[in-house]
Amino acid sequence: MKIITLTTDFGLSDWFVGTMKGVILSLQPRATLVDLTHALPAGDVRAGAFALASGYRYFPRGTVHLAVVDPGVGSARGALAVRTRDYWFVGPDNGLLSWALAGETIRAIHRLENERYFLQPVSRTFHGRDVFAPVAAWISRGTPLDRLGPAQRDWVRLPWPQPRTLPGQIRGEVIWVDHFGNAITNIHGQLLAACAEAAWEVQVRTRALGRLRGCYAEARSGEPLALLSSSGFLEIAVRGGSAARELRLQAGVEVQVVQGSSSKEIRRPRSRRR
Amino acid sequence: MKIITLTTDFGLSDWFVGTMKGVILSLQPRATLVDLTHALPAGDVRAGAFALASGYRYFPRGTVHLAVVDPGVGSARGALAVRTRDYWFVGPDNGLLSWALAGETIRAIHRLENERYFLQPVSRTFHGRDVFAPVAAWISRGTPLDRLGPAQRDWVRLPWPQPRTLPGQIRGEVIWVDHFGNAITNIHGQLLAACAEAAWEVQVRTRALGRLRGCYAEARSGEPLALLSSSGFLEIAVRGGSAARELRLQAGVEVQVVQGSSSKEIRRPRSRRR
Amino acid sequence: MKIITLTTDFGLSDWFVGTMKGVILSLQPRATLVDLTHALPAGDVRAGAFALASGYRYFPRGTVHLAVVDPGVGSARGALAVRTRDYWFVGPDNGLLSWALAGETIRAIHRLENERYFLQPVSRTFHGRDVFAPVAAWISRGTPLDRLGPAQRDWVRLPWPQPRTLPGQIRGEVIWVDHFGNAITNIHGQLLAACAEAAWEVQVRTRALGRLRGCYAEARSGEPLALLSSSGFLEIAVRGGSAARELRLQAGVEVQVVQGSSSKEIRRPRSRRR
Repeated sequence: MKIITLTTDFGLSDWFVGTMKGVILSLQPRATLVDLTHALPAGDVRAGAFALASGYRYFPRGTVHLAVVDPGVGSARGALAVRTRDYWFVGPDNGLLSWALAGETIRAIHRLENERYFLQPVSRTFHGRDVFAPVAAWISRGTPLDRLGPAQRDWVRLPWPQPRTLPGQIRGEVIWVDHFGNAITNIHGQLLAACAEAAWEVQVRTRALGRLRGCYAEARSGEPLALLSSSGFLEIAVRGGSAARELRLQAGVEVQVVQGSSSKEIRRPRSRRR
Repeated sequence: MKIITLTTDFGLSDWFVGTMKGVILSLQPRATLVDLTHALPAGDVRAGAFALASGYRYFPRGTVHLAVVDPGVGSARGALAVRTRDYWFVGPDNGLLSWALAGETIRAIHRLENERYFLQPVSRTFHGRDVFAPVAAWISRGTPLDRLGPAQRDWVRLPWPQPRTLPGQIRGEVIWVDHFGNAITNIHGQLLAACAEAAWEVQVRTRALGRLRGCYAEARSGEPLALLSSSGFLEIAVRGGSAARELRLQAGVEVQVVQGSSSKEIRRPRSRRR
Repeated sequence: MKIITLTTDFGLSDWFVGTMKGVILSLQPRATLVDLTHALPAGDVRAGAFALASGYRYFPRGTVHLAVVDPGVGSARGALAVRTRDYWFVGPDNGLLSWALAGETIRAIHRLENERYFLQPVSRTFHGRDVFAPVAAWISRGTPLDRLGPAQRDWVRLPWPQPRTLPGQIRGEVIWVDHFGNAITNIHGQLLAACAEAAWEVQVRTRALGRLRGCYAEARSGEPLALLSSSGFLEIAVRGGSAARELRLQAGVEVQVVQGSSSKEIRRPRSRRR
């Protein structure tokens, strides 16, 4: 078993992802190819970084994670192969890999410069097919990283939007809206554990969502709620509905966790409008 | 070959389906994973039941069918593994499996209670990843069902919307609208065979569609028609168009099959409007 | 490794593609199945022909390419299996395979008539599942084409929309709009190479896009540009945006490549409007 995962913003309406798989299988017939997602917003490196960081860990040791969100394709941006303790990562050096790498023990980082491992001729618009797919296949075949290009000390790191911890409140933001319209924030459950002893409550826009629930079914149908997402972060949902649509949530919208009963003042005006 | 199919409402825009596959491959590296569909309407157990029942039969004996449409995730709803003569089924005990199981010879039903076969820690929002995926992998590895939890006599059955047979007519309803806008009904072809000797005709809303055609190409371009769907049920289509859009069809819309020439009166007012 | 690719207009919202894979794996358990795309516009044989022709070449020798865009399913249209020097192709004889076959050395063409290799009973609405999938699996198992049906000399050829070469200009058209909103034309890069020595420029609707760029990053953010697509054809894009939306491009829209400075007259009125 030689697993290679694919994470891109290429969509599934063209032949792009299919041809990447064809290139990989031409070089590594034993590859098991798994799509993480191909529906990342076009050119959204940050969304790609979050999806990869959220998903890569569920694959067995030795998996090669290939990720391509690459608005700078064909320009001077670098390209990387990274060996960590448990995985390999291949992609552009534009921050896309950085949130996943932040959770890993790095062993080696190499720039992709040896054209012998590329598909020739290399286009200037589709390195997913011509550079990253063949390199992932070669790595899966056992090619040592130092054959791919020179070692590199560092890589482009996307700043992680750290939630702000103030007296009596935590301020974070929505970082991902999922298929169900659930809004995942940058506030990790570990941060909430610290303030669990005092009464506290989740607020978004002018809505107070009360305390964390354990699962969607703990809210009434149509009721907004806050709970811990399966990725470990605070999540805003609407039972049986779309929080994104009903609370107008999208990446960047502020979410607060507030101690005490301040929520009542917030909830009141909303109630009156109903 | 160890086939595991996946049927969910998770969509393909997040990493959710990908991580389920990672979990499966971590436990069962020899799995061949096949998506039945991941585009079921969110939380629509009935749609999931119909898709699974329509598709599962085309897979070889020994296939493990993993299905997750699970609005009650994290609550007290049960979780099942079922052994039939030819297949295994894994999913929540909420009716999702019931229309497929109705066509199978049941051998054993077990509740999923043994946490040893779950991914730890088990979240309360994503049992697809933490319960059903690992259980499907363990079954594929040969784990006997009685290790997964206690045997169970029954399971939640979704009522099948039986068409009503009246003198001179059959009344059914649209149960699925496909990608092309074709509307599949709950009226099985076997029911139509019984009345095939008399003249009869299909009607939907105020439209009479005449007798069954054999294939789409038997209608004129843009013409609505009725025919037998590849799943064996009566289907309403528009040649080269979308019956769902042009006849305003969706799940639940009534469809009638009527003996004799009553259709003329129905067709006339429509023609005048044109 | 026995690769079978699938290219259809079936979408991924139903169980259709999944059941095709079930049928294939029932006959050929060793198949590695790769989706080229299933999002072709419904019934659009020309789009299917372009996608297949653009993608098939990236797969290893011996791959079986299965393609189904089949508005005439169940009617008298033929069905084909084709052996070329490097690949097999299976699909309806409606032109879908013809643009890929135009680039191949043909070895044998057979009509699919031997029902022994079909899934019984054969529906009249889903030959993807009942005819093409099982035939692809049998070919992958090594079944000689002459068992599938009689040899045939010719096949339905879709006319390729040849760009017109006039003195000082090339007139082509948009032939595909991709997931990013980039518009791929029928003007191949080889045609442009011929006029590269003179000054020339790309025009679409009333916009002049200047000379070919090498990659998207050579344009300013939001700027329209022309470049060579990864499929070798002239492509119209907008840096960080959608050319389809911003320049109202769709299949059939005329694109010109013009020698000399005529572009100035075209650009001026547009500039004034801004």
